[in-house]
Parts: sequence; C-alpha cells; structure tokens
Amino acid sequence: MGRVKLRCPQGQGPRGGTLAGRARTASRMALLETRKYSQGSALGAVNPDLASERQTPSFSVEKLTALLDGGEENTRIRRAVVEAIESDPVFSRENQYFQSQNEKYEAAVRKAVHLQKKMHEMGWTENGPEFKYIYRALSGEVAFLLHTIFMRSISVLGSDKQVAKWIPLAMQYQLIGSYAQTELGHGTYLQGLETTAVFDIATQEFILNTPQISAMKWWPGDMGRSATHTVVFAQLYIQGKCYGVHPFIVQIRSLWDHSLCPGITAGDIGPKMSFEHIDNGYLMLQNVRVSRENMLSKFCEVQPDGTYVRRGSQQINYLTMTAVRVALISHEAVIPLMKACTIAIRYSVVRRQSKLKPGEEEAKILDFQTQQEKLLPHLAAAYAFHFINNYLQDLFNRGYEEIQRENFDMLPELHAFSSGFKAIVTQYCASAVEVCLRACGGHGYSLLSGLPSLCTRILASCIYEGENTILFLQTARFLIKCFMAASAGHPVPPSVTYLAAGKPGKCPAKNKFDFLSPDIYTQAYRHAAVRLISSTAAKLQVLIQSGVKKHDAWNECTVQLVQAVKAHCHYITVKNFAETVERLEAKGGIQKIMKHLCDLFALHGIFSNAGVFLHDGHISGAQMDMATASYLDLLAVIRKDAVPLVDAFDFTDKTLNSALGSYDGQVYQRLYEWARKSPTNTQINPAYERYLKPLLHKKLSKL
Amino acid sequence: MGRVKLRCPQGQGPRGGTLAGRARTASRMALLETRKYSQGSALGAVNPDLASERQTPSFSVEKLTALLDGGEENTRIRRAVVEAIESDPVFSRENQYFQSQNEKYEAAVRKAVHLQKKMHEMGWTENGPEFKYIYRALSGEVAFLLHTIFMRSISVLGSDKQVAKWIPLAMQYQLIGSYAQTELGHGTYLQGLETTAVFDIATQEFILNTPQISAMKWWPGDMGRSATHTVVFAQLYIQGKCYGVHPFIVQIRSLWDHSLCPGITAGDIGPKMSFEHIDNGYLMLQNVRVSRENMLSKFCEVQPDGTYVRRGSQQINYLTMTAVRVALISHEAVIPLMKACTIAIRYSVVRRQSKLKPGEEEAKILDFQTQQEKLLPHLAAAYAFHFINNYLQDLFNRGYEEIQRENFDMLPELHAFSSGFKAIVTQYCASAVEVCLRACGGHGYSLLSGLPSLCTRILASCIYEGENTILFLQTARFLIKCFMAASAGHPVPPSVTYLAAGKPGKCPAKNKFDFLSPDIYTQAYRHAAVRLISSTAAKLQVLIQSGVKKHDAWNECTVQLVQAVKAHCHYITVKNFAETVERLEAKGGIQKIMKHLCDLFALHGIFSNAGVFLHDGHISGAQMDMATASYLDLLAVIRKDAVPLVDAFDFTDKTLNSALGSYDGQVYQRLYEWARKSPTNTQINPAYERYLKPLLHKKLSKL
Repeated sequence: MGRVKLRCPQGQGPRGGTLAGRARTASRMALLETRKYSQGSALGAVNPDLASERQTPSFSVEKLTALLDGGEENTRIRRAVVEAIESDPVFSRENQYFQSQNEKYEAAVRKAVHLQKKMHEMGWTENGPEFKYIYRALSGEVAFLLHTIFMRSISVLGSDKQVAKWIPLAMQYQLIGSYAQTELGHGTYLQGLETTAVFDIATQEFILNTPQISAMKWWPGDMGRSATHTVVFAQLYIQGKCYGVHPFIVQIRSLWDHSLCPGITAGDIGPKMSFEHIDNGYLMLQNVRVSRENMLSKFCEVQPDGTYVRRGSQQINYLTMTAVRVALISHEAVIPLMKACTIAIRYSVVRRQSKLKPGEEEAKILDFQTQQEKLLPHLAAAYAFHFINNYLQDLFNRGYEEIQRENFDMLPELHAFSSGFKAIVTQYCASAVEVCLRACGGHGYSLLSGLPSLCTRILASCIYEGENTILFLQTARFLIKCFMAASAGHPVPPSVTYLAAGKPGKCPAKNKFDFLSPDIYTQAYRHAAVRLISSTAAKLQVLIQSGVKKHDAWNECTVQLVQAVKAHCHYITVKNFAETVERLEAKGGIQKIMKHLCDLFALHGIFSNAGVFLHDGHISGAQMDMATASYLDLLAVIRKDAVPLVDAFDFTDKTLNSALGSYDGQVYQRLYEWARKSPTNTQINPAYERYLKPLLHKKLSKL
Repeated sequence: MGRVKLRCPQGQGPRGGTLAGRARTASRMALLETRKYSQGSALGAVNPDLASERQTPSFSVEKLTALLDGGEENTRIRRAVVEAIESDPVFSRENQYFQSQNEKYEAAVRKAVHLQKKMHEMGWTENGPEFKYIYRALSGEVAFLLHTIFMRSISVLGSDKQVAKWIPLAMQYQLIGSYAQTELGHGTYLQGLETTAVFDIATQEFILNTPQISAMKWWPGDMGRSATHTVVFAQLYIQGKCYGVHPFIVQIRSLWDHSLCPGITAGDIGPKMSFEHIDNGYLMLQNVRVSRENMLSKFCEVQPDGTYVRRGSQQINYLTMTAVRVALISHEAVIPLMKACTIAIRYSVVRRQSKLKPGEEEAKILDFQTQQEKLLPHLAAAYAFHFINNYLQDLFNRGYEEIQRENFDMLPELHAFSSGFKAIVTQYCASAVEVCLRACGGHGYSLLSGLPSLCTRILASCIYEGENTILFLQTARFLIKCFMAASAGHPVPPSVTYLAAGKPGKCPAKNKFDFLSPDIYTQAYRHAAVRLISSTAAKLQVLIQSGVKKHDAWNECTVQLVQAVKAHCHYITVKNFAETVERLEAKGGIQKIMKHLCDLFALHGIFSNAGVFLHDGHISGAQMDMATASYLDLLAVIRKDAVPLVDAFDFTDKTLNSALGSYDGQVYQRLYEWARKSPTNTQINPAYERYLKPLLHKKLSKL
C-alpha cells in the first residue's frame, strides 16, 4: 500500500535498451554540477542500467513476494509494519555507520522503550500477526532482547507464584532482566559452570559466589549497563552436597539509582565485532544472598529444611533451545543473506568495468561469468534456505503439538534437525555474505554499502546459541544412532528412513540435460549422505573393535562426522527445495524460475563438493563435466532474472541502509551524499594543528 | 636481547604434567580476589596449561625463528627494531580497540610524524637493514603510506628536474602527497578513467576536470584530510585529441592554512570495515590549472607548442605493481595469518571445554580433532606461504637484475606469478584468519582478542592492488599462452615447463604411508594442474572452433580458468615447500617438523579439494581414504608441537595486542582487565537518566 511510494512505478524507467543506453551516455557526458549531487535531487530517478533489468521478468515479482511471505495477506501486514516503523524517526538508522558503541547502545535502549509505546499505539500485541515483522523492520537493532529471555525463563522454569510476581513487573519494564548462564571460562558445556549457590538453612537464603575469575558471568546481553535483575545459573549446594546447575533470580542494580547492589561487580565486556548496540556484560558475585523463593522452582525446589525435591519432566526445556535455533535461522542468517544478495546484485548491474567485447562500452559486471558464479548460487541458496526454514517450522510445530500431549518422541529428531540446520545455514550464509561483500570490490568494503555490518553480525550466528561444530556433532550422534538402528531393522524417524534404503547404483545421467532432473541430483545427494554416514559408522566400529576406547574413537571420527552431517543437511535441503517446486502453481512463471534456482542450488553443491560425489564413482568424471556444463549454463539463464529475483525479497531502502543496494541504483551519488555526513568531514581535523601544521612548508601557500 | 624480558625464561614454569595439573587445580580452588585481577599482578606468571606445552618441543624454537628470519643476524635486528618501537609510548596501540575513526586517524598521523624523528634518532635509514621491520613493528598502523607512493611515482615517472624539485620537499614532509588513480566508477580498468586534463597552449597549463560524479577520485589514502598534493591520473587532451591516461602533480590544499585550493572539492570517504586510521579520500576538480611542468614527463612530454613526445620504454613501470604485490603477500596476508594462528593456538591450550573422557577434567580444546583440523592446516599454510614468498622474492630479484640490463623477458612471468600468488595467498589467508576467529568461540568475537581487526583488515587485501578474480584471470592468460606454446613445442619459462611434460599415469600410493612421500603428492598436484589447464584450453578451442567469438568464449571459460590457476599456484606452493624442506639442515629437529608441516599442507589440500584429484582417477576413492587417514594422523603429530611452532613466529605481546594470545596465556584475567578500560565502563551510562530511570519501579530500590 504505502509501499508504492518507495518504488519506481513500472514503466517509469526508459523502456528500450537503446534508449537506456542513450540516457546513460547523455548522463555520462553531462558536466559536473556539484549542487545537483549535494542536494540529492538526482536521487529518485532509477538508474537506466538497473531499470532495464526490470523490464521483462519471466515471472510475477509480486506473486513471488507473496509466496515468500506465505500469502498476500502476510505481505500486506509486513509492509504495514515496516511502513509504520520506518516512518517513525525514533527508529531511524540513518547515522548508524557513524556511531560509537555508546551512541549505538543509547539508540537501542531508546528504541526498545519507544517500541512499547508504538505497539500500544498501533494495537500490535505479542500474539498478533504483526509481531513477527517488528524485529525484521528494526533489523534487530534494539535493546532488551535478553529481557525477553529473562521473562521466558521465568515463565518456563518458574512456579505459578514466581510467574505471578515477576512477569507483570517485567512486562511493564519496572525492572530490566537479563539471563546469566555463560561464564568467562565456560560456554556450551553447562555442567562445567562454576558459580555456586549455597543454601543457608538458618536464614532461608541462597548465598551466591563467583569462586574464581573463570567463573565470572560473561557475555549476557543487557547486563553490562541496563539490567536490574538477572537469572543466574549456579551449582546448587545443600549441606555440602552439589545438586547441579539451577537458575536463581538475582537483583544486581538498585531500582532507585541504578547503583550496583552489595556484593555485585558488573560492567560491559567492551567492544565486539558487531552488536555494539548491546551491552553484553560481566558479573561477579561475592556472598550475594537471595531468598529461598528466588530459585526458579517449577521443576525442583529446596524446602525450608533443606530437602531437595524434583518434580515433573524437564524435557520440555529442550524445546526452548530448539525454538530459538529455528527462529534465528531466518532472522540472523537467511534474511541477511537475502539483503546481501539484493545489494550485490543491484550494484552489479549498475557497476560497469572492463570491456567484454572490443569496441563496446564497459560491461555490467554481472555479465562476467565469474561474477555470476559468485552471486547467483548464493541467491539460489537464499531461496533454498527460506524453504528449509519453512520445513523446520512445520516440523517444530508438529513436534510442539505432540509435546503438549506429553509425547516426547519427536524431541531427538527436532533437536538434531534444529542443531544441524542452525549450523549449516549460518555457516553457509556467513561465507556467502562475505562473498557478496567482496564481489562489490572496494565499495563493498565501505560501511556505507551496508555489507560489512551484515558480514560481521552474521559471523556471530556461527558461534552463539551453540557453536556450530558442537552442534554438527550433536546431529552426528543422532544420525549414527539412527543409522545403527536402521541397519538392525529397527524403526527410525521418517526424515532418516533413507538411511535404511539399499544403496542405489550409479548415476544414470547421459548428457548435461539429465542433470536438470531433480530425481537425478537428489539421488546423488542421498547417495553421498548415506555413503559418508555409513563409512564413518564403519570406521567408528572398526576402531572400537580394535580396542580403542569409545570416546577416543568418537574423537578420531569427528572430522568425518561433521562432513557426514553436512551431506545429510545438504541432501534434505535439496530434496525439500525440489518438493517445494513440485507443489508450486505453474501460474505467473513462479514454478519455472524456482525450478531453475533449485537446479542451480543443487548443481552448485555438486560442482563445489565434487569429491563427495566422485569418491565411489556414483558420478563419473565425464558426468561431472556434464553437471558442470549444466551448472554454468544455468548461470546465464538466471542472470536475466537476477534483479527481479532480489526485488521479490521486498526490502525497502531503509531496511537495506545501503548506498549500493537502493532500489533506484543511484550508487555513486548516494556514496558521495553519505560520505559527506561522516564525522570525519563534519568535525575539525584533529591532527592538523598539532601534527600537520608545524610540519608543512612555512613560506608558501602554493608550490 | 631486550627480548628476554618479554618472555618467561625456560624453566620458570612448572616442569611436570602432574605439577602443572596441581598448580591449575590450586588456582581453580582459590577464592576470588578482585584486587588481584584488577591490579594485574596475576599477569606475568605463565598459565600452567600453556607452560606444559613448551616443555618438550621436538625442535629448537630459536633455530626455527632464525630460519624464518633468514638468519640469526636478521632476528637480532628485527628484535631490536621491535623493542625500540614498542618501548616508545607514541607508538602504543594500547587503546586501539576503543578508538573512534577520528582518534585512529590522529594517532596514525602522530606516529608517522614521530617515526621520522625516531629513525633519525636510531640511525635507521631507508636503505638500512632495519627499515623492513619498522612496518611490521607498527602493525601497519601509521599514516602517510600514500605519501611514499607519491614519492615513488615521481621518482619513477618524473623527469630529473621534477625529481630534483619535489622529492626533497616530500622527504622533509614540507608537503604531503597522495596518489589519485581510482575513481568512484572506475577501478582496475585504467583506460576507463574519466578525469580530463586539457592542454591550454595560451597559458601553457593543463586544465583538470571531473566531468561527472563517477569520475570523482575515490579511495586514495592520505587524501581525505592530510594531503596537500597528489598525483592525479587523467585523460590527456591536446587540441581535441585524447592521448590516454597520464599523471599530473596537483596541489589540493594550501600549505599555509590547509584550506582547499580553488576548484578543489575533497574530503574523507567515511567509515570502512578497517583502515579507520587512514583518511581515504574523494576529490573533484573544476577547471583546476597546473603548469606544463606538472605532468610527470620521464616517458612522455607535451612541448610548449602542444607537440606530444613519447620516449623510452614504459615497461619498467609494470615492475612497481609487481613489487607492491609481492611485498603485500608477506605484510598483509602471511604475517596476519601467523598472528591469528598464534592467538588461536595458544588460546586453544588454555581453554578447556567438555570432557574427552568420562571422569577426567574438561579437555583442552586443542585436543579435539575438529579443533586441530581447524587450526593446524592453517599453521602449515602460514609456513608454506612464508616459503613461497621467499621464492617470489628471489624470482623478483632475478627479474629486477635482468630488467636493469634492459632484458624484459622475465616480465610476463613475474607479472603472472605476482598476480596469481597475491590472489591465492590473500584469499587463503583471509578465510584462514576467519576460521581462527571462529575457533576461539565467543571470546574470538571480542575485539580484545585481536582477531576481528586482523580479520576485517586482511579482507581488504583480497580487493586492493588488483581484485583477486581479475588477477587470477591475468595469470590464466599467461598459463593458457604457455600451455599452447608448450604444446606446439615452443620454449616456455622454466616455472611452467611442467605443462609440456607428458601426462603421468595413476598415483602409485599403496597405503597411507605412501602419502607422506613428497614425490607422490607433488605429482598429484602437478597432474591436477595440467589436467585443469589443458581441459580448459581445450574447451576454449572447441568454443572458438564452433563459431563463438573469442571474447565470449573466454568469458564462458573464466570460472574454470580460475580453478586452473588455483591448481597451478597450489602445485607450485607444495613443490616449493617440499624442495625447501629437502634443503634444510637436519640439525635441531627443524627439517623433521617442517616435513610434517609440508605433508600436512599438501594432504589438507587433497582432502579439501578431493574432486580435483578424483576427477580422472589419478587418485582413486580407496587412495583418497589413505590420504585422509594420513592427514588425520598428522594432526595428532603436529598437535604436540603446536605451541612451539607458533612461538617460533616470535611475536611480542604488544604486536599481537590480544587478550587471548599473550605469551603467558592469562586469558581470562586479561580479558577482564582490558574490558574494564572500555569507554562503556569509564563513561557515564548515556541511556540511564533519559530512558531507564523514568521506566523503573518507582517505589523500591530492591524487589
């Protein structure tokens, strides 16, 4: 709706290649008019090189956007949310590339506080359809996300009484919560946490301590400078006996004047590669006493006499972790990749460099095969991962329903899938975003391109919520277990029944066109996954049978296990993409273009991991050449629709916040406009008076 | 010499594993003493987990350092330079992770100005043996590097009269120069530059103009805020005729008050992913007049009557580009990778996480096979690239001698080698540094680890001085040409005679130990390179013969050409490493450990690019399993010497500037110490009064 304003209406740009060419030449010949650039009046008209890319898309862009959103109604809601957020100056990201850590933090807190008001104003609720688009509209640059985790942990782990006490306060921000699990010396391995909580029967309190520096809480968001309370995970001791890690609500700052509470040492952990808007913090506890009621006690309680009581099943806890991992795939990996592709592909049809043919003008860089090969497979991957994310959401929803009915059977599969796909998608997208940055040359390296911030931020997604290698190995345990079960004829979850099926023979492809058959490439992926899983399982067994201890044998197989898990996830992604394409309507050209992207994604994987397919001759060298030929042919096919394919992601200019990626393609004007606002140009040169002036030639102003 | 202070003397750390274990346990049990950490008195003693790694190296660390330096004398000189620089507070990098772009720029200018004084004080000259270590000691964080390029371009391209006028002024910093080649819309393709210089016979001046925004000079270092002069590359016009791109000395700022000269618009291009200390700038020229004498005229001159005269050979110019590319391989790629390996490997023996064996304490993360596989191949690569850099330096020196004798025969080979290796080494090192960062988990992501700044800086090396893909394709032209010549029986440069040799047969390896034979793996690399070059040359010919135009055919082969060049460079690197090992003395265990690293580098390449070797069956699937087994075995072997192998790089703590990578391994204390100095902890919370205070619970200080 309000969206139209942001776009060049169809047909506004020049229509013919010749006209576009003439317009460009005319613009090139124009004399420099400084005023024109500095006032930005040149912005708005679409660069003719970019406009020409939009003239004859092979599919309906609007229909594809609706498909990505899961329906036109969702598209409408999303656009309305984005419009409301972006038209509000408090949420502006205009100066973000010039801000210090302090300024970014302040802006993020301001946004978080304002968001509450905004939601009320707009009638958006946490259960409403708008909610999921807010984070996207803010590009995640908002404070108090850990406050949400604080609330969720109380809701899930707290007793009814605890929920009734804390949640209303937190909802109204009468306190600000955080979640203090990770320690300086302890990350993923929770049992290793060192913080202690000793129960003192005399006072009915827990005494919390940080026994040494490695036990200091480190990294929790919102804790460095904002939080007044936090959930501290600590080893529970009752009468000298350790009962393992438990959660405790601890106040760390005064609500009155925000000063640190007695026994508390806390602060900010300093600058990071990104996330400067978040005050990740440290926390040391010295004899901090909290009441018995502050241990979250839905599942375990310490009674007044020191008796430890455990009740109910804690299995449902795993679901939170799974939900977070599935959610972050879209927000922190796939959407950033879509943004990076949009920026790099639009720029690549505006940027011209070198001549492809003698005598012609310089070519659009997207017309070089190497540039296509850098960007188009990642564009295809963005679609592939969007669809696998839908698949995971469905799996998760089904699992959630089962668990509500106290059926926990799907939990291992859910855990394995969310772990493996979190790892593979974040890893792939992180390196793909970096490729997009590099594909834009020097200008990609400027913060103003928007690519460096995408790049440094997405890197973190490979580490947080489970470091990727550890996650891969968790999925590996599941796969090896399933493989053993399947080999012994036992039942396994539906997603891994393929492990039981007999080995298929050689790839039947006879020419390059056969590699455009989903049956053929899906089969190849499946074959590779089965081979890697079975051969690693065999190695494991041989080692154990030869007397190597089980844990040593496992360690000696981990490099190959990671390979096997990647092959499994790759297979599922390709299969799911092919099945999704199958189900699409043929109307509007959507199915056809998605089929091309699916083929490209699959063949890119075969081309880039050739060894996996060649190893046992499932694909022969000659067939690999056919697959490569089809792969390279596809680049040229998809090249034609590259711009409409990123337009369909439907990011506004404000969301992209990129001088290179705007809808109008006025990259050079925008780079110049934006650079002029940099503090390096608006503030006095700090080095002149002190260092340069005394140096320079004293007698002349001009040489 | 002065070096000893920085290090824990041999034997100071606990000797036995048991003692080390006890010391660690004792330290873990100690109660928290805040004061101890905050005053840093705990620093200095070496962490016992790290100390134990240094007890029984299989080789002499000091001898290896000398080998890397090219002799003990060089080591002595290097250490003296580093000591002199690091003991001077002006060169301190202590607060670099907290500085704004303005502060970094100011510090870099200050260092540049001070460096002049320092060099004079120390008696270091530009031709002395100390000179090459200065940049390393400063970690490149110094201004006026483009001033050096300004001087070099005048020396190379200027007439004797121009050299006599400008160089003395520049030497004394009576002016500050820059080098303005790249434009907003034009990078690598120099012929596309749009800036114009029109000769006005009447006034004997050139009139320089920026005809439109894409012609604005963009990116030149030192130009945004410092330079008073610059060498502008512009299309020369005389009486309406264009004579192509020529260099002109242009004054842009007053020497008197640093104001911009008439007709000049200039400023800083704003924030980048790194290099914040450099004022990369933009420049627009409007009817700027410079005298006829300001065109650099060693090779071409415009005479007073407008006659254009060309003289001498310009070929020697190419040498500058080659020299820069060779020099940057070491400074901007290999040394950063060595630093990243030092940080990540030291941290990986201090960090403990999860249990490898039930009942034991948590394991050092370097004992996990997956962690070894992330780091050790890159450690091997750092050595491999160090040796290939020596090889390139030798090649360059020989070429330089020939060229002095007016023999330009080696120029194409030099150009091809410097291009291809610049591209492959920067690309490899950039991704390896990122792997090191990720291998350190969350703490690697903190700027205080030193890894993010290495990571963002090295990324630029893939783009500047020739974007890597373009460089690969320049090498490809050379290789295809040589291949055609060799096939026709014509002579080719010695480095590519292997292209002419007949195809070797199958790999003869019969068991995993055979893959530890340099003959076997070098042969495999050579085979792969020949196959990729010859098959791409064949594809090119087939396309052309089928009627595809030559430039289109070339474009359709570029993805495969890049693969072929990589295979060629990989082969040369492996071969050179193996030959270097061969030549080493057996004494001090150096040869043995270098042989292991060479094997690891080679087998890692085979493991990671399996498809290249399996494609035509040179290596069979079964042989690939053998190579993989040897590869994984080697990880465990090199694991034992991992710390001594990075110690041998001999970086001081100040050079690394990393909380994770210091020699003493006191990572947690240092992270805490450094975090406390962050402005987020030393400045007032900017969000409290405005946003948090009005929000929080009004009545109580404690809940």
